[in-house]
Amino acid sequence: MRITLIGSGNVATHLAAAFKNAGHRIVQVYSRDMEHAALLAYHVKGEPISDLQRIDPETDLFIISVKDDAIPSMAKELAKFNKFTVHTSGATDLATLSAIVPKAGVFYPLQTFSKEKEIDFWSVPLCIEGVDEAVTVELEHLGRTISNNIYRINSNQRKTLHLAAVFACNFPNYLYDVARNLLKENNMEFELLRPLILETAQKVRDNLPADVQTGPAVRQDESTMSNHLQMLENEPQLKMIYELLSQGIITNHKPRH
Amino acid sequence: MRITLIGSGNVATHLAAAFKNAGHRIVQVYSRDMEHAALLAYHVKGEPISDLQRIDPETDLFIISVKDDAIPSMAKELAKFNKFTVHTSGATDLATLSAIVPKAGVFYPLQTFSKEKEIDFWSVPLCIEGVDEAVTVELEHLGRTISNNIYRINSNQRKTLHLAAVFACNFPNYLYDVARNLLKENNMEFELLRPLILETAQKVRDNLPADVQTGPAVRQDESTMSNHLQMLENEPQLKMIYELLSQGIITNHKPRH
Repeated sequence: MRITLIGSGNVATHLAAAFKNAGHRIVQVYSRDMEHAALLAYHVKGEPISDLQRIDPETDLFIISVKDDAIPSMAKELAKFNKFTVHTSGATDLATLSAIVPKAGVFYPLQTFSKEKEIDFWSVPLCIEGVDEAVTVELEHLGRTISNNIYRINSNQRKTLHLAAVFACNFPNYLYDVARNLLKENNMEFELLRPLILETAQKVRDNLPADVQTGPAVRQDESTMSNHLQMLENEPQLKMIYELLSQGIITNHKPRH
Repeated sequence: MRITLIGSGNVATHLAAAFKNAGHRIVQVYSRDMEHAALLAYHVKGEPISDLQRIDPETDLFIISVKDDAIPSMAKELAKFNKFTVHTSGATDLATLSAIVPKAGVFYPLQTFSKEKEIDFWSVPLCIEGVDEAVTVELEHLGRTISNNIYRINSNQRKTLHLAAVFACNFPNYLYDVARNLLKENNMEFELLRPLILETAQKVRDNLPADVQTGPAVRQDESTMSNHLQMLENEPQLKMIYELLSQGIITNHKPRH
C-alpha cells in the first residue's frame, strides 16, 4: 500500500517503520516541524513535508497521528482528496473523523512507544474500527501485515481501553519513580528494584493480577502498613496514595480466613 | 552448608530450592502445619517437622522465614542451640534477632515469589546484613552460591527498600487488576493489556522511570484527563486514585514548554 503519515511523534515513527519493513511504501511524512518530518522520512524513505499544500494525492491511506485536538483540523485539510483516512488515537471517537472523511477508520496500537527503544511490532495489539464492514476488513488485512494481534474495538470500548492503559502503564511507571526516589534518598540504587518490577509484570502474563497479589495489604498485615505510613509521615501525597491503593487491595480481596 | 528452614511459605520454598540446587544440604523443614512442612521437605530432601522439640542441632544455619511477628518467638526457641541464625524479612530489624541469638543476620531476597511460578534465583537481589563484619562476609559467601546480586543493606535502608517494593510491585499489580476490571465490564480481554504491561516494565531496565513517563498527565493533556475522570464518575475510589497519581506525575515533571 502507498501510505502517507500525518505526524512524526512516537506512534507515527513506530508505525511507519513497521509498515516500511512489511513492504509498504511510505509516500510522505508530514510534520509542522520540517526537521521532525525529515528525520522520520529519511528512515522510511519517504518525502518529508511541512506544508499541507504539498500533499501528494497519489496515496492509498492517510494515517493521522497527531495530538488528539488537532485531528479534526488535519482531517479537514485532507478531506478534499477523498482517500481512506484513519487516526491512531485511543481517546478519539471514530465519528470525529467520519464526520469529515467518508472512508474513515481507527488504527490504534495499544503500546507505550519511546523513540529510544525498538519494539517488536508483531506483538503489539492493534485495535481497529471502520465506518463499515468493508473498511473494517480492509484495516484487518492491513493490520495483519505488521501485527499478530488484531482486535475489533468500537469507539466506546476504545475509550475504556485507553483509560485502562493509564492504570496499567502510566500509573505503574509513576510508582516505579516513587520507589526510585525513596531509594535514592537512602543511598540505594534503582538497580535493586529492577528484577522485582520485571517479575511483577511477567507474573501476569500467565495469571490474572488478582490471583498473584502479594504484599502487606492483601495479607491484612496492619502492623507493616502502619509502619509504612509512619515512614511516609513527611510525604502527605505519598501517604494518601499508600492508603488509597492499600484500601483498594483490601476491598478487592476477601479476608483469607 | 547444612541448612534448616523455619517456615514453609513462598520465600522459604524458593530459598530452599535455590540452596538445594547449589549443593547445600537441607537438614529439616519446620512448619506448624505438618503437611506444609512435608511438601517442601520432600522437594528438597530434608526432614519435615512440625514440633520445635524435634529440631536437629546438627545444622550450620537456621533460616527463619515466618510471619514478621512470629520471628522473636521462633528465635527464642532456637537460641539454646547457639547457631548462626538469620531472618528473611524486609520489615524487621536485625536487632529483633540479635537481641536473642548472638550470631545473627538478615538474608532478604527482594523478589515477589509465588509457589506456582519458577524463578531464576541468580537474578534475585539478596540484601544481607550481619551483626559484625565476619558474619556479613559469611552471608556474602553463602549468598553468592545462589545469586549474582548481593547487596549490603542495613536495617534502616531495608525498611525503606521494603516500602519501595510495595510501590514498585504490590501497587502496580493492583493497578493491573483495576485495568482488568475496567476491560471486563466492557467485554474486553485482559490479554489486550499484557504486551503493554510487559513493555512498561522492560522500559525501566535501561532507563529511569521519570525519563520514560508517558500518558495524559505528563503531557498535561487536561481534556483527556477530564474525560477519564468523567468515565470514573461512578467509581469514587478509582477517581481519587486517578487524581492523586496524575497529580503526582505532574508534580514530578516540569512543564514541557
